[in-house]
Parts: sequence; C-alpha cells; structure tokens
Amino acid sequence: MTKSKRKFAIGLDFGTNSVRALIVDIENGQEIASVVDSYPSGDAGVLLDSKQPLLARQNPEDYINGFYRSVSGVVRQALHGKDAEFSPEDVVGIGVDTTGSTPIPVDRHGMALGLLPQFKNEPDAQSWLWKDHTSFAEAAEITEKASRYQVKYLSQCGEKYSSEWFWSKILHCKRVNPKVFEAAYSWVELTDFIPALMIGNTDPDTLPRGICAAGHKAMFHTQWDGLPSAEFLCSLDLDLVRLRDHFNFKTKTADQSAGQLCESVAVKVGLVPGIAVAVGAIDCHAGAVGAGIKPGTLVKIMGTSTCDVMIHPLSEPLATIPGLCGIVPGSVMSGMYGIEAGQSGVGDIFNWFVKNMTPESFTQTANTHDALSVEAQKLLPGESGLLALDWHSGNRSVLVDQLLTGLILGMTVHTTSPEIYRTLIEATAFGALTIINRFEEYGIKVDEVINCGGIAEKSPLTMQIYADVCNKPMKISRSAQTCALGAAILGAVAGGYYNNVETAQQKMTGVKEKVYIPDSRAVAVYQRLYQLYHDLHNAFGCRENPHGLHHVMKELIDIRDNMRK
Amino acid sequence: MTKSKRKFAIGLDFGTNSVRALIVDIENGQEIASVVDSYPSGDAGVLLDSKQPLLARQNPEDYINGFYRSVSGVVRQALHGKDAEFSPEDVVGIGVDTTGSTPIPVDRHGMALGLLPQFKNEPDAQSWLWKDHTSFAEAAEITEKASRYQVKYLSQCGEKYSSEWFWSKILHCKRVNPKVFEAAYSWVELTDFIPALMIGNTDPDTLPRGICAAGHKAMFHTQWDGLPSAEFLCSLDLDLVRLRDHFNFKTKTADQSAGQLCESVAVKVGLVPGIAVAVGAIDCHAGAVGAGIKPGTLVKIMGTSTCDVMIHPLSEPLATIPGLCGIVPGSVMSGMYGIEAGQSGVGDIFNWFVKNMTPESFTQTANTHDALSVEAQKLLPGESGLLALDWHSGNRSVLVDQLLTGLILGMTVHTTSPEIYRTLIEATAFGALTIINRFEEYGIKVDEVINCGGIAEKSPLTMQIYADVCNKPMKISRSAQTCALGAAILGAVAGGYYNNVETAQQKMTGVKEKVYIPDSRAVAVYQRLYQLYHDLHNAFGCRENPHGLHHVMKELIDIRDNMRK
Repeated sequence: MTKSKRKFAIGLDFGTNSVRALIVDIENGQEIASVVDSYPSGDAGVLLDSKQPLLARQNPEDYINGFYRSVSGVVRQALHGKDAEFSPEDVVGIGVDTTGSTPIPVDRHGMALGLLPQFKNEPDAQSWLWKDHTSFAEAAEITEKASRYQVKYLSQCGEKYSSEWFWSKILHCKRVNPKVFEAAYSWVELTDFIPALMIGNTDPDTLPRGICAAGHKAMFHTQWDGLPSAEFLCSLDLDLVRLRDHFNFKTKTADQSAGQLCESVAVKVGLVPGIAVAVGAIDCHAGAVGAGIKPGTLVKIMGTSTCDVMIHPLSEPLATIPGLCGIVPGSVMSGMYGIEAGQSGVGDIFNWFVKNMTPESFTQTANTHDALSVEAQKLLPGESGLLALDWHSGNRSVLVDQLLTGLILGMTVHTTSPEIYRTLIEATAFGALTIINRFEEYGIKVDEVINCGGIAEKSPLTMQIYADVCNKPMKISRSAQTCALGAAILGAVAGGYYNNVETAQQKMTGVKEKVYIPDSRAVAVYQRLYQLYHDLHNAFGCRENPHGLHHVMKELIDIRDNMRK
Repeated sequence: MTKSKRKFAIGLDFGTNSVRALIVDIENGQEIASVVDSYPSGDAGVLLDSKQPLLARQNPEDYINGFYRSVSGVVRQALHGKDAEFSPEDVVGIGVDTTGSTPIPVDRHGMALGLLPQFKNEPDAQSWLWKDHTSFAEAAEITEKASRYQVKYLSQCGEKYSSEWFWSKILHCKRVNPKVFEAAYSWVELTDFIPALMIGNTDPDTLPRGICAAGHKAMFHTQWDGLPSAEFLCSLDLDLVRLRDHFNFKTKTADQSAGQLCESVAVKVGLVPGIAVAVGAIDCHAGAVGAGIKPGTLVKIMGTSTCDVMIHPLSEPLATIPGLCGIVPGSVMSGMYGIEAGQSGVGDIFNWFVKNMTPESFTQTANTHDALSVEAQKLLPGESGLLALDWHSGNRSVLVDQLLTGLILGMTVHTTSPEIYRTLIEATAFGALTIINRFEEYGIKVDEVINCGGIAEKSPLTMQIYADVCNKPMKISRSAQTCALGAAILGAVAGGYYNNVETAQQKMTGVKEKVYIPDSRAVAVYQRLYQLYHDLHNAFGCRENPHGLHHVMKELIDIRDNMRK
C-alpha cells in the first residue's frame, strides 16, 4: 500500500453525554473515521440529584478517559479502514469543542478536584455542566450588581448574566460548599481543560484560555482589559479576586494554536508529538464553523438544547442586542463578532415527553420519536387547537430566565399524544422565530438558516415545522457531525494548513441537497399561532408587564422549593 | 317461605354509559338487588364524530332496551336473592333519574325519531347527550337575546344559557339539519321520556314534564308562567314556537307521581301494574336526595363531570347568583329551591390522562388510576411545581363557557406522570372551591359537603385533596349508588309511603364512617396555589379582563375549526 498524500485533521466534540472523535480529509471534508465514547457516570453521563432538579454535574474522569479511548479508537479505525490511506504523520492539527459554560474546579496543578480521593463523592467538586442551574440566585445577584456598575460588563451578553455561566457557578459553590471553593486554586472551562491536557500544560496560571468560553461565559472582554475588575468581583465576594489572578489573560481565538501535542499523550493515542492543538471552542461555535457560517447565515445547532450562532464583521457597526447570550469578538473566528443565542430546551423537551407522557402504543415501536412523528405529520398546523411554551428548561434567549417553566394549553379530552408532541415541536419553532426576530430587529439580517445536530438530521417533521413557522427555507449541514467537523477545521487552521477559517470552510463544508421549503398555507396559520405564542410569552415571561402572569411560574417554584426542603 | 312484610322502592339511574336498576328496602335504605346494563352503541354508549369533537349523541334504543333488561334483571335478582323476601307486590314506587339536558326529538306519538328507519343513521335524530356542545353558537345567541329581553329568563340560571341545554340543542338542529327538525313534533328530555314509557303515555302534548329538567334546562319558570314566551322564541327562530305548544305546562316535582306503571310494561319486567312512577329527575338532583341533602349541605356527585347541588327554603330570600347552572323552585324537592352548579369535566380529565398521556410503567398494572395514585399520594402539595386549569371539557360554573380548554404549566424535563396526574386532581379541586366560594359569597353557607359517585367511592387521594383544597371535611354518601337510591326515595314518596322526601331521607340515607379531614399544612400550601389558580382562571376565563389572555383559547379553537373544515 502506498503512503497517502492526503492530509487530515482531527476534531473532538465533547457533548453532554459522550465525546466524539472524527478524522477528516482536509481537502474535501470527507470523514474517514469516527468514534463515540459515552460517559459512563450518572444518568447518561450526567450526575443528578433528585432533591435538586437544577443540578447537573459530570465526572471529570469521564472526559479524560473518553479523550483517550475516543482518540486512540479513531486513529485505530482510520489505520484499519477500507481506504487505509491514513497515517498519523499526516495529521496537521487537532481541534476541540466542548459544552460550556462547564467549569471545573482544579487544584494548583490543574488537577480536577473531583479526581482527588477526598472529593470523589462530592458533587460540588465535579464538573459543573452547562445545564446546571443551581446558581440562579447568584446569576440574579451578578446581573443586579453589574447593571449598577460603572463598567457595562453585561452590554455584550444581553444585559443578563446566566445561571449557566462561569461566575454564577463559582459564586454558588462558595456559598453552598466553601470547602470545595477553598480547595479550588482556579476554575477551568472544559473547553480549555482538554487542550491543556493535550499540550501537557495544565498550570491554571498559564494554560491557554479560549476567548470563546472566556468572552461568552466569564465576561472577559478587551473593552475592559480582560476579566471584570477586582473591585467588581470583590463586590460579589472577596474570595473571587484570587481566581482572577489565576487566569491567563492572553486569551486566543479557536483558530489559533494552543500548543503542540505532548509526547506522553501522543504515545497513548497513537499519534505523533508536535501536532498543533487548536484553542478550545464551545461546541456550537465549532458547529457554526463546520456548518459553513458566514455573515447573514444563522447556524442552528439542534440537540438537547439549541444554539444559534451568527457572525458579523468587526469592521461594521453592531448594536447591543438585549436577550442574546453574547457578542464576542473572535469567538467563532478571527475578524468577526461571534453572536450567540439559544434555546435552553429543545430535544430534551421531546425526550421528556417520550419518556414520561407517551402511552404504550407508541413506546412499543422501535423508535418512539418516529412513531409519534408519523401521526403528528398527518396533522395540519393549528388542527389540534393546542399551544405550548418551550420553557421546560427555562428560556435562554430572549428572556434569559432559567426559572421559567413549560406550559401547554388548549387540551380537550380528545387531545392525543401525537398532537401534544407536535405542539411541543411547534413551541420550540416559535422560540426559534423569536430569536430570529430579535436578530433582525437589531439589524442583523438572517439570509439563510443552516441546521445541524441530531434533530436536524433525524426529524424531517421538525425541520418542516421550523421552515413553516420561521417562513424561511431550512438547510441541513452536510456533515452529521458538524461540531466535530468544525473542531477539525479549527485544527486544520491552527496547524497552518489553511490561512483562515473561510478558506477551510470552502473546501470542507456544505449543505445537503434536501432543503425544507416553507408551505404558504402553513405559514399563514403559523403566523396566527405565533401571535398567540407571543402573547403567552410576554404574559408569563416579561417581568415588566404589570398585568401579566409573570409571578405565576415564579411562585410555583418558590412553593416547590419550600416543599422540597 | 313466608311472605315478606318489607316494602321496596325501585330506583332507575340512566347514566352516560349505562343504566342501573336498584331495589331498596324503604325502611332502612338497604339495597337488596342491583343490575347495570351498559349501552351497546358507539363508544361506551356515546355516538361520536371525530370531525366534530363537541358532538355526543346516544341511541334511544339503548335506553329502552336498557330499561327492560335492567328492571327485569333486578326483579329476577331480588326474587332469587339469598334473603328472598322480595315480592313484586311490595314495590310501592319507582323513581327515575337520567342525565340532562338530554333532549330527544320525537314524532307525534312520542316515538324517538332515531328509532324510525329513515333516521336510524342520522346523528341529529338521536338523543342529544348532555355533554354535546355542538350548539355553543346558539347558546351564545340565546344568552345575548335573553339578556336584552324584557323578561329576565336567565336570572335563574347564572345569566348564561348553556350549549348543554334544551333550546340551544334544538336551535342548532334547526340550523344544521332542518329535515330532522321538521320531523320532530316535539323534543322530550330523557328524564321525561322514561317515565312516559312506563306509564304508557308518550303523547308529547300531555306526558308529564318534570320541573327539574324543564326549570334547569328549558328556562321554564312560574315567574313567567312556564316556557319562554312565543315572542321570545320567535326572536330566536319562528319555528320554535310550535314546540312551545307541544309541551305540558303542568310540570311536576320529582317527588310527585307521573302516573302508574302500565300493564304492558309491568308484564315485561315482572312487576305488577299500578305501581306509582315518580316524575323524572336529573341525575344529580336524585343524587342529592340519595346523599341526604338538606339546607347547608352541598352534595357533590363526582363522576365524568361533577354536579354540585344545594337546596334553600322557598320561604327564605335568595340572591341571583351569577355563574350557577340554575336555581329552580321544587327541582330537588317540594318547598325548596334546587340550586345546581357543576364542573364540566372531572373524571373525564383523569381518564383522558390515563388513556393518552400515561407511560407503560403505569398502564401495565391492574388499575392505572390506582398505580398513578400510589405515586401521586407520596407527593406533598406544591412539590411538583405544577398548576393546571380543569377546563378540558369547558367550564360549567362559574364561567359558564364550554369553549374553554385545559392548561397545565410549571413543567420541567423532570416532571413525571404521577405529578401531572396529581396536578389535574388538584385543578378540579380548585374548580370545586371556586364554586363553593361563589355559593358563600352570595349568602349560601356551605356547612357540610357530602360526596358521592364513582370518584368519591374509589379515590381516597382525590377526596383528601378536595378536603385540603376546600378546607372542609369531605363526607362520602353511604350508598355506592346514590343517584339510584335517590330515585328510589323519590319513588317511595311518589308512591305515598312517605309524606315527604325529608322523612324518607332520615330512614334511607347516611354517610360513611370515613371522613376526609383537612390537613392544616396542606391547607396553607393550597391557599397559595389557589391564588395562582385564581389568577389563571381570571386571565384566561374572564372576557371582561382587558389585559387578560381570554382571546388565546378562543382563537385556538377558531383556528382549529378552520383547519378541520
């Protein structure tokens, strides 16, 4: 067999339940090997606590073992694949994306506290998964204090700091578990933790921190020279200041190199030392790259939750847009603002329904989602008389309120389970449209929507509903592993094979032939339904509405938490 | 075997799915024989139309066959029972209760049109079951015209005429099926149809009409000398006037005799001719009698829907109470106002949930309601964070709006099926409390609540929640067949064995030893939750609220109906 002339990049995608490793031909984006390693701990990789429904942690060991297993596995697969043109020497770069904000408390050496014997069984010492919302009170406090502070730290993240983010989680840890807080020399985002492991520099003071996580989650911005000031952090808690000092302010974009693959790691996974390791990216930003994002393109990464990403040239003016998750220069690629919005719950709402609310007649089939979809597909828009709010996991954009909850109305005693399933899909589509409208109201025109992720791949029903509700064609990214592909692209750029992300995207990305086109009759019905969704959205979601029902969900949570105590 | 000295009454209870015949010892209320005959037609006796979810009809043949089968069956059972002290000669009276308003179009001879060959397959020619709401538009029209008319026809029925009632249904028939309307010489409530059959006088002009159905459903009142004026009926439709002329204005109370059992019927069922047949009562009114109603006692008949009945002495002042179903002198017993309120959906909401929304783990048990209840019982009030509106079948009291629909909110992706089941029970309890509050706001003190019907019998969880939500002890009627027992009591009074209902009740009724006592901690939580229920109730249910969401459910129904066309 002749030696390959092909060149490859490796993309690693650390999702909520598993890590995926992908080897890609960097000339054409062809995926030659792919391995998924599921996290063994907890409930599909998530550590839960039935007493605290907002808690979601992960075992850092799952990341490390998952890294080694998936990378060595994917290298082995490529070596023995039917093309077998792969050689480890031809890997030009490795990129990494992960969930975020998923901060991990670490000791002086960058060792995750959860790996230490004394903290092994301590949930607060583990990784704080993005969807952990235990720190909602701290998020409100940070929002409140930041809004009164002279530096406008929240101007770039929708004027609200989220319970999903870095400082909320750390402050909550300080409040509920000072022992863990004291033991943590620093906190490292998972997205930085993995590249640090690969390059063999886990020193919290110096390990490269990506602008993507820092900017979107930790209020890091060049406008105020990095993290928020010591004075501001003091106003939250005196002890936060020390964490500011254990943080490398020289943040990098994800298309830059974090360093080279160190020998000890390379040996274990069957690669050669010295390969460029890209700075980590948050998964949806890598997904945006892998889907072929450009100005005017909205990339929707649709899974458990949905991330919406757009980019906008740094050279052009950009308004402050309330209700988005963040606007960060360089967070997706150099030279562009990365703009992120999202829906806290999409696939997890559908999964909840399948798991808890679906009768036997549908669950006895091979795939309950498919069985429900077949029946839901037969329904016309509006035919069920139902309407729902997609807030089972809170609302990330544009309300930025994790303490909102789900709602469904219009039921009669004839309402069926496929009707509700369809209504939940529609609710998430209305949520998606709310975000698109917000982008456009602030001057960012959405010319094109490219979807990727599990739901975009697997649910034609969902994609058609999104096309009809949003009245825009829905395109699907060609790759079924768009985030991992995006990470590979970033690896290829960090490794110097391409000068920039745009050039790499032209070679390596594309959309599928099948495009979901809006049906004009459905569009008209959904326009009426959206108006009603909008009325419910504002009545239950907007604190400012004096005649609204904003208090209802809040008081229910207050009662619930009192009773669970 | 010696001849019995015991005396008996027979009670017949025509429910939504079946007819029950009961033979009772009139000295002590002991039930010596009981037979249930299920209606064979349609879905558990109800003729449905998937294109019209509001339609609910019944085959009149089911009533007639059910009458013969159940009465002959119960007589045979009593004759061969282990006591065997029963003799047909010792039956002093037969009472009848039925659902209502359940009007049947009949020809000149009182023959139900649905029994004629030419109308056999015509849904509009069948019996229009109480829960048929196809005539909502006509109900609104009657309400609107009556509210502007010089005689205040709606003053005694909560100022709103219902789509469940007599004139709405007939007017709707005229509009959608003039052929059936033309063929109908008159319309007879099921509650009058059965006694007419028994006494052998089915002539629509002269058959006895009970004040109970006439007063509560057909706006019959002594204040305006009977049915609404010809002028008023003309304003609705010229052709309604003729129906007014085919109606016996000498209405009677249900403790009066309609006539004597005729020979041809007596022979067929194994009874002797000449037995007194009481005037028919609507089921919940008979249930109130069977539960031992007296002033200050609220009787709740809890089944598919719930009827709430109170009585108030004619000699004492009584305000006009908005939102009740009716206030009719003599409708429950002579000398008393019968006051009716109700909830359109209770058991049917729980059944809907079990049938459509419950996963396999609960439905594989012997009784899904019990399996859900076991888990729901473990929850504390408010612990689920959920809240629902009990409007899946509309709202009978106090909003009197059949076009309202269900709502549930507070869901997270951790919400379980028993949590929702409990929340639906709580929602019906909040609906019950809303009615109690309305009674009390208008000066009718509720000193005691006696429950009867399937749910009161079978669901301790529901009864405890009702006690906690309403902050009142919940008593349960001793008889498991309270409506049929009430019918038997009315038969005994009509037959002259007792001078009045009160005396008969003292002998024949009682409550069970088990009383559900409010738990003070639960009461406090439910008081908070009720405030939130009340806010939702008013936001979605009250047209008058300018900032509310009243339009949402209405527009959804409008969209739904457009799409189903």
